[in-house]
Amino acid sequence: MFELKSYLESRRDLFEKKLDALLNIPSSGSGRLLSAMRYSLLSGGKRLRPILCFAAAEAVGGSPSQCMTTACALEMIHTYSLIHDDLPAMDDDNLRRGMPTCHKAFDEASAILAGDGLLTLALYFLSSPSHWDSSDPALNLTLISLISHAAGQQGMIEGQMLDMESQGKNLSLDELEQLHRLKTGAMITVSIRCGAMLAGANSHQIQSLENYAAHIGLAFQVADDILNVTGNSALMGKATGTDDKLNKATYPSLLGLEPARAFARELVDKSLRELEPFDAKADPLRSIALYIIERNR
Amino acid sequence: MFELKSYLESRRDLFEKKLDALLNIPSSGSGRLLSAMRYSLLSGGKRLRPILCFAAAEAVGGSPSQCMTTACALEMIHTYSLIHDDLPAMDDDNLRRGMPTCHKAFDEASAILAGDGLLTLALYFLSSPSHWDSSDPALNLTLISLISHAAGQQGMIEGQMLDMESQGKNLSLDELEQLHRLKTGAMITVSIRCGAMLAGANSHQIQSLENYAAHIGLAFQVADDILNVTGNSALMGKATGTDDKLNKATYPSLLGLEPARAFARELVDKSLRELEPFDAKADPLRSIALYIIERNR
Repeated sequence: MFELKSYLESRRDLFEKKLDALLNIPSSGSGRLLSAMRYSLLSGGKRLRPILCFAAAEAVGGSPSQCMTTACALEMIHTYSLIHDDLPAMDDDNLRRGMPTCHKAFDEASAILAGDGLLTLALYFLSSPSHWDSSDPALNLTLISLISHAAGQQGMIEGQMLDMESQGKNLSLDELEQLHRLKTGAMITVSIRCGAMLAGANSHQIQSLENYAAHIGLAFQVADDILNVTGNSALMGKATGTDDKLNKATYPSLLGLEPARAFARELVDKSLRELEPFDAKADPLRSIALYIIERNR
Repeated sequence: MFELKSYLESRRDLFEKKLDALLNIPSSGSGRLLSAMRYSLLSGGKRLRPILCFAAAEAVGGSPSQCMTTACALEMIHTYSLIHDDLPAMDDDNLRRGMPTCHKAFDEASAILAGDGLLTLALYFLSSPSHWDSSDPALNLTLISLISHAAGQQGMIEGQMLDMESQGKNLSLDELEQLHRLKTGAMITVSIRCGAMLAGANSHQIQSLENYAAHIGLAFQVADDILNVTGNSALMGKATGTDDKLNKATYPSLLGLEPARAFARELVDKSLRELEPFDAKADPLRSIALYIIERNR
């Protein structure tokens, strides 16, 4: 019987140790930049992208150790995007993962630079022989290309831009889906793809896992929208009710709360069907899909 | 007789055409993000880093076509750093390259994202088979590793952090030099190193060219400090007198104006001595070194 809680704990433990070690680097300055980078990166969080990367590797018979640097790089890119999204000129958030946001704990300039630093450092680790996950330079280059595409102007950053532009506007369901596929879906999909590739998945497996990823990526966002309405701020470590305050288009606002819940369940069902060709080694991915709609934070 | 003006014009022309073509990409959103990225990137400028990359390749018998994508990526990273440095939370500049800064022409959120987008896109081009300069994956990975190191927390970003922290403080000459070696020197040095490596330079040549780069990188900054005092704002396309206003430590403020000029000349002399083993193919690098202290913008 697969136990998600102990799985997540053991994988997070492995991950946090490696992440802390990777960020144990010298500073050429006062140390303030590195402190701001470490503050935001090592403050917990769900670590969803690294866990999905590991679980995808395991689903095809691999292990977390085969994609550890990549998992760290994915979380560094995710964290940089949170730091920049929280800035006063963007979402102007004061609380993240239960702590003051980076620009509140340090200052705006430090937060901008800490974000820049984390993105750049992620690419440094992915490209440096002493860190890379594969001994095949061509595969490492492919990973960098896929990740920078997902994180960039045709992925996450465009999604954040659409998010900024959509505030106060009436989005259609299609427009809302496009926003989320770019803002969060692209990075979730590439996390799963990288884990699978590093563990030697074949092209059919990669395709099924990417389909799984697209469904749970969107389900995760629908669930996030629902939690922003119904969630407990203390439990979630960030403010709730903010979407409504910013007049943001969300699944509950477009569909209503119950139909939004039904839509999330439907997406999770679709994601589980993509995993049918896989054996019990894909149980972590199956459990994560179910967890997405059952979580309360 | 080598003519720097026509050399710079022909290399800039080649470069601008390629840069414009590279940025002719689809947008998954409203187009605003890509517009902001193109606005700042395609607004002229000296293109010093790409030109140095070309000139280093040529100094060892290569050609600009061998390092074109790398040169574009270096300028994209430089432009992203200018966009973020100009933000209200950082240097709060209104004018850049004779035009409103990105956050003035668009808005702060767009400028933050345009910077993020340019950095990410640079890494995408460097890692993508349809764009990369070398057919050797290992060399391409090495370039990404060198560039992301120079641009990151142990290079340019740390330099910008030191710059923010040093405002209103009395820096020593050593501290000022460390700031500039990080903030501008690291990217100038890596620009020259990448051009040389892509053109097949040997390790002795790379070492001499890196020494040349370190000297002219610092000379360029000393000259910039001098121009901030003595320069013509209209000619330079940006405000002057700003260092004094921000109470920044500069070479003129620490050494006096004439000794700062003498220091810049001394650095250029040192850079020229590093080029002694090279033949006339290094004349562009020689002329650029002299241009740095003779320019008026």
